[in-house]
Amino acid sequence: MLENINELLEKRNLIELKKYLSNIESEDIASLLNEVNEIDEEKQAIIFRLLGKDESAEVFAELEPDIQENLINALSDKEIKEVISDLYLDDTTDLIEEMPSNVVKRILKNINITDRKLINELLNYPEESAGSIMTPEFVDLKENMTIADAFEKIRKVGVDKETIYTCYVVTLKRKLLGVVNVKDMLFAEETTSIKDIMNTNIITVNTLEDQEEVAKKFEKYDEIALPVVDKESRLVGIVTIDDAIDVMHEEAEEDFEIMAAVTPSEETYFKTSIFKHSKNRFLWLLLLMISSTITGAIITKYQTAFAALPILVSFIPMLMDTGGNCGSQSSTLIIRGLAMDEIRMKDFFKVIWKELRIALMVGVILALANGIRISIQYKNIELAITVGLTIILTVIISKILRMYTSNNC
Amino acid sequence: MLENINELLEKRNLIELKKYLSNIESEDIASLLNEVNEIDEEKQAIIFRLLGKDESAEVFAELEPDIQENLINALSDKEIKEVISDLYLDDTTDLIEEMPSNVVKRILKNINITDRKLINELLNYPEESAGSIMTPEFVDLKENMTIADAFEKIRKVGVDKETIYTCYVVTLKRKLLGVVNVKDMLFAEETTSIKDIMNTNIITVNTLEDQEEVAKKFEKYDEIALPVVDKESRLVGIVTIDDAIDVMHEEAEEDFEIMAAVTPSEETYFKTSIFKHSKNRFLWLLLLMISSTITGAIITKYQTAFAALPILVSFIPMLMDTGGNCGSQSSTLIIRGLAMDEIRMKDFFKVIWKELRIALMVGVILALANGIRISIQYKNIELAITVGLTIILTVIISKILRMYTSNNC
Repeated sequence: MLENINELLEKRNLIELKKYLSNIESEDIASLLNEVNEIDEEKQAIIFRLLGKDESAEVFAELEPDIQENLINALSDKEIKEVISDLYLDDTTDLIEEMPSNVVKRILKNINITDRKLINELLNYPEESAGSIMTPEFVDLKENMTIADAFEKIRKVGVDKETIYTCYVVTLKRKLLGVVNVKDMLFAEETTSIKDIMNTNIITVNTLEDQEEVAKKFEKYDEIALPVVDKESRLVGIVTIDDAIDVMHEEAEEDFEIMAAVTPSEETYFKTSIFKHSKNRFLWLLLLMISSTITGAIITKYQTAFAALPILVSFIPMLMDTGGNCGSQSSTLIIRGLAMDEIRMKDFFKVIWKELRIALMVGVILALANGIRISIQYKNIELAITVGLTIILTVIISKILRMYTSNNC
Repeated sequence: MLENINELLEKRNLIELKKYLSNIESEDIASLLNEVNEIDEEKQAIIFRLLGKDESAEVFAELEPDIQENLINALSDKEIKEVISDLYLDDTTDLIEEMPSNVVKRILKNINITDRKLINELLNYPEESAGSIMTPEFVDLKENMTIADAFEKIRKVGVDKETIYTCYVVTLKRKLLGVVNVKDMLFAEETTSIKDIMNTNIITVNTLEDQEEVAKKFEKYDEIALPVVDKESRLVGIVTIDDAIDVMHEEAEEDFEIMAAVTPSEETYFKTSIFKHSKNRFLWLLLLMISSTITGAIITKYQTAFAALPILVSFIPMLMDTGGNCGSQSSTLIIRGLAMDEIRMKDFFKVIWKELRIALMVGVILALANGIRISIQYKNIELAITVGLTIILTVIISKILRMYTSNNC
């Protein structure tokens, strides 16, 4: 794909290039433009200008912030206005959050007053709240409309909405009464009242709810959009499934980074500078280093034992690693179980009891394996028993200790 | 919720209970029935029988296999037939895969011949392939239909389809020509031909494609369903977003378990027996134990050094932990980067070069921190320099080695 585009660019055959681009999915064009090393700023702007009106907004929403900034700087006010007016408001809000203030000024200048007010409201919701990821662009219906009225309204206002498949029934004061799916509307008579087919068991999210909770609701209830209500149960926006998937993705990424003792970062690997990488990793290493220095200090108390039986030193790595590995097995399984609601806080003693039996079983087998090796290698049964018992204790203590800390976090 | 239900069950007030249940989302009823410790088998069957016709299939699809088995044993053939006929075929296939053979026989007996044939085909796809998670229940249209024809067909066949919002245009030989959204259909004239509004840039997945690849396509292209085609590009099924989300979830879970050195398991924490838990954890511990035994063997080569300067033993834990932590930071970030397509295989040397500079920076700072501590604590500059240099080397070697292994896996 990249080769074809470069060839057409070099030949300056823009008509052919435009045709070629119209057959590519907007997400693939965005991936291409995001590769800064492959395509320079000037080419980015040429390609972007060749995109169809609808497609350019779709592509723009998928670009990395630095590419968006380059493009805005390359575009005229008229072009910016066109792109921004086709963006969904949640994407515009994300854009404004990422851009430096001079670019934000140019963007805001090219947005109409109503949208600017809505964006300002969205910007005020706390980071990672449902309010910060919702969009106010949904189809609202009234309960006394007929299906025919409803379809008319969808046809009139639906083009700009992020989804039309789920519509929301509200009172004059914007209180949420029910939800209607287009599927149900298609299967009902045209004269049926919306009131009669709307679903009043509504799953809602609150504007201030954490985005991770919102994502969990999507996972549980298999919906493609969820309504967001404020403290007074007024409908203020919707979250769509694509945004929920982004959140799931982001949160899993964060969990991985925390597990590997790295401060989470939203940047990609290559876009993060080596200073930033070092900073994200350094603090955790230092903290963990201090804790293992304490272990070291404890070991020095037993210098006489090591002097009498120097071979003991060679078991330090094995015991330390086994303890660490056992601990991380338990804490990972328990933390994931808590996150997935498979384990509740009240199960604390059940988990201890289960981990204790697992630790005993695993510890005894590992101890036996090691004991046999040691008695064969060193022909020293006492040493084998000592190391074996130490393994069992290490496994039990590290599983239980880690369980205790993971249940508390 | 549980208390109200138990109270109504005890009072044998089934009419009230039925009304109460009808106001609860099917996913919440399923969560309740999944809690074996809270509700016994007899109560499960009573509650299940009180559910409305549509709801019972929805609830059933969300139940854990052991609860499904209990219920099937409690239900009559007629009841089984009713539930199964309302399940989507992909859910029926999942059910058949999980049940013991005597239960499978009862299920198959109550399925009509056409569905049984379809299920048999689905069962033949390899595990974790697109074919194994797709459903053959979609709306197919012909290119010469008008929008009015298409809506008529949707109204006729759509009730049982997993989604109607995306319809697929096929030839007589079932070759996939294009995709039409109900949204576009609603915004076009009734007399428009499907050919004129269908999208022919189609993202498809192949029957044998890995389910993880399918999930990635959903994440990238923001679709709510994707068509699945066979080797001859014939449309054989669709995957819907809710199944893709389950896959994302499962795969992330698996990655977490592998990272924590646990053999992945699909069971929940409590449903896994302590023997299974021990088995899943033991093999990894043993493998890792062998590798650290080698470290121990290397250490014994330096017994004279430890005899001369016993304090050196106390640095073993710190050096080992720091090396391990540095390594897991690098491998996590790189493996995630590879999984997210942020890093490609061809970037190998770029990654080495980046990790090398990060390792140098992190190593020097950690060495300084330690060197200062040691020179103050032991007033021994030589020891401080030795440990400091060892830290730098440890950090660099472990980051580069881990990078090499994670790039190869």
